[in-house]
Amino acid sequence: MNAFISANAEEYTVYYPLVVSLVLSFIGYKITCLTIPKVKNSFIKIGLFGKDLSKVGKPVIPETIGVIPSIVLILLLFINVPLLFVNQKDTNILFPYSKFSEFLSSILCLESILILGLLDDLFDLKWRHKFFLPMFASIPLLVVYYVDYGVTTIMVPPFLQNEKIISFIPFIGNTYKNGTIDLKILYYLYMGCVAIFCPNSINIFAGVNGLEVGQILVLSLIFLINDALYLFTSELSTTKHAHIFSSTLIIQLFGCSLALYKFNKFPAQVFVGDTFCYFAGMVFAVSGILGHFSKTVLLFFIPQIFNFAYSMPQLFGLVPCPRHRMPKFNEKDGLLYTSRAILDGKTAYDRENKVKKVKPFVLIILKCLSKLKLIDLEYDAMTGELLTCSNMTLINLVLVWSGPLREDKLCQRLLLLQFFIGIIAIFLRHMGGALIYGHDNLFKVH
Amino acid sequence: MNAFISANAEEYTVYYPLVVSLVLSFIGYKITCLTIPKVKNSFIKIGLFGKDLSKVGKPVIPETIGVIPSIVLILLLFINVPLLFVNQKDTNILFPYSKFSEFLSSILCLESILILGLLDDLFDLKWRHKFFLPMFASIPLLVVYYVDYGVTTIMVPPFLQNEKIISFIPFIGNTYKNGTIDLKILYYLYMGCVAIFCPNSINIFAGVNGLEVGQILVLSLIFLINDALYLFTSELSTTKHAHIFSSTLIIQLFGCSLALYKFNKFPAQVFVGDTFCYFAGMVFAVSGILGHFSKTVLLFFIPQIFNFAYSMPQLFGLVPCPRHRMPKFNEKDGLLYTSRAILDGKTAYDRENKVKKVKPFVLIILKCLSKLKLIDLEYDAMTGELLTCSNMTLINLVLVWSGPLREDKLCQRLLLLQFFIGIIAIFLRHMGGALIYGHDNLFKVH
Repeated sequence: MNAFISANAEEYTVYYPLVVSLVLSFIGYKITCLTIPKVKNSFIKIGLFGKDLSKVGKPVIPETIGVIPSIVLILLLFINVPLLFVNQKDTNILFPYSKFSEFLSSILCLESILILGLLDDLFDLKWRHKFFLPMFASIPLLVVYYVDYGVTTIMVPPFLQNEKIISFIPFIGNTYKNGTIDLKILYYLYMGCVAIFCPNSINIFAGVNGLEVGQILVLSLIFLINDALYLFTSELSTTKHAHIFSSTLIIQLFGCSLALYKFNKFPAQVFVGDTFCYFAGMVFAVSGILGHFSKTVLLFFIPQIFNFAYSMPQLFGLVPCPRHRMPKFNEKDGLLYTSRAILDGKTAYDRENKVKKVKPFVLIILKCLSKLKLIDLEYDAMTGELLTCSNMTLINLVLVWSGPLREDKLCQRLLLLQFFIGIIAIFLRHMGGALIYGHDNLFKVH
Repeated sequence: MNAFISANAEEYTVYYPLVVSLVLSFIGYKITCLTIPKVKNSFIKIGLFGKDLSKVGKPVIPETIGVIPSIVLILLLFINVPLLFVNQKDTNILFPYSKFSEFLSSILCLESILILGLLDDLFDLKWRHKFFLPMFASIPLLVVYYVDYGVTTIMVPPFLQNEKIISFIPFIGNTYKNGTIDLKILYYLYMGCVAIFCPNSINIFAGVNGLEVGQILVLSLIFLINDALYLFTSELSTTKHAHIFSSTLIIQLFGCSLALYKFNKFPAQVFVGDTFCYFAGMVFAVSGILGHFSKTVLLFFIPQIFNFAYSMPQLFGLVPCPRHRMPKFNEKDGLLYTSRAILDGKTAYDRENKVKKVKPFVLIILKCLSKLKLIDLEYDAMTGELLTCSNMTLINLVLVWSGPLREDKLCQRLLLLQFFIGIIAIFLRHMGGALIYGHDNLFKVH
């Protein structure tokens, strides 16, 4: 049963953690399904509810229900601990402390983000307060990484392997050796940023029934496909075990999320809340950091990264940002339309909200984006003056491309987009990696 | 800096974790002091408030403020991790994984109980739902204990060291060997119970301004005195390090609690909430289990154990139990009086609440307790019939002994009681242990 450390053990013992995960994942699914209907009214009772603005009559729906699958997942991981480790004490080999600490620090990280999410759902924390807290949560994880691997070198693509060019890079330029550079503390900073980015990016890619949990399900699938590729092809036991660890987490996340999806999909009976978005995002971050593919994780998060980058002009106030940017619901045809930001700064609404006229260079950028079909602009039919633009979120962009859609269709398209980008990312990672570096990264640990 | 594992290292390195704890404890105190006034209104805003029934006008006071010091303590412990462990990787000795896992599993345990406490404060969980959850939280702790020590034998006092008598004990009777018996799985069950008991017992010994945090401060002092005794007298490095670990947690708990006490002491500006009682109780449980003095911990909790045992007749319905059992505030003289339970079952209130007349054998017990001055009974002056009894909590009992008191004086007496019982417990543990077992337990790990 020495599932985690011995490379030469029989196949079935290597896959023992996966079997445990599958069983627990199913149990987690069942428990979550049974619990949500029982507790959802208690959430409304204590004020945790929201109005579904994209439905006729704007029904009141319990909010923050994602707490349930999060807690269930943590309980499952607790049950994992004795199942995976207790029987390893009697073997003749040393107890796999490093794997044990990895597991503990992962649960720790997840519990921390759960607490942060809960506080955010309760108190509506300010951005400056909550932004850096996930980095705190990742401290034990980074210490485990430091102690267990401590690898902070990355490979330089061959076309950049020029000592003179690289020596210009401040701080780390002088660490160039045999085609690799040592990022040192920057690598830990980078991993801390992954821990900040994954939870937050899932949380802002939201606003349509089923999208929050849906993207988590799709990302889980992508992660599992990636893990499976390594498990079936790699000869290295360390790689294998890193990806078994990753799948262990993701499989159980999948079970709990699937149950939540049942209640959150169109038409939503419950809202997810910030908690679960943060929480699931952290599962991906942990999985990537301790599974040693934190760089690949970012490839899987391309839709989220795009959504964030695309939102920046509005988030930083270059383009007016209304309070809600979710698509606009039309009660007459039941479809969602792109919501719009008013650009002219002339209406009463604008003056009230101190919206200023956008600067000329921003206008030029907007017009360029419009040419690239990355935004929809509305002009005054008489004067030809620019009046509004579609809000800069990926959700609105899909509506710009496809025209008005029913909520479930819109969610479906966004999830398909996420899925295909994930598949392309896996392809890029393994095939592209081989092209750039001259050998296939499937057979490398880092 | 190899503070945790090397016994022969110089003294200052052994005490390095203590210095770190003292500094962090002070920082925790400051942060908690600064944060509470800033956030307390947000708690009222989201409905987390209560009325102080023992004050004129029953002012509204924010509730669940104990979340702040709990979170601060967890952040401190996170900062501990790199400070205590990162510099140990470069030493020539093996990285102290076992100490590292101990530390991680402790934080894990504390975060779990924090989540449970938060949910309880938010949703008023039912007893049957929350009672066993701390046992879940303690799973990683028990696995660490199993892996690191696995010692489940306890010593049998000499006057019981008779093979024939012991063989009658079911399950474990046949494990008797050289004056010890092996409790096996029962020992883990026992530790799980400690993890259930400590948080819950602090939570029910409450109801007077400053008492919840006050008892935590007193217990911390008692724990630290006990740790100091071992640190200064023991020669065994394992004992020393177990108690350094324990003090590390307790010193930082003390700092955060002291800040909370400033706001919770009479007249209270904030209420503590269940969260902090559970949380601090778990710190004591963790400290006792991984510091290997879980049996001694129960001696320090004698007031809490007494309070629980004394409450049982009311909790189990043998004696009528009113909704609130806290002392009764008299607005005229500003003093607290014993609150009372009505025994005759005749008043309208009783019929409404389906209070039955107490059974004859309970009456006999109550009269015995009254003889021992452990309860106050009130008789009808005309008929001599028993009308009421003082509510069966330690708080009311102190009022029975001393007569009406102002709230702060009452709290003071209860804390003094806790302190002296703690001191006697330390004395009993070390001196009494020597008497019973024939040697001083100061020099034994278990």
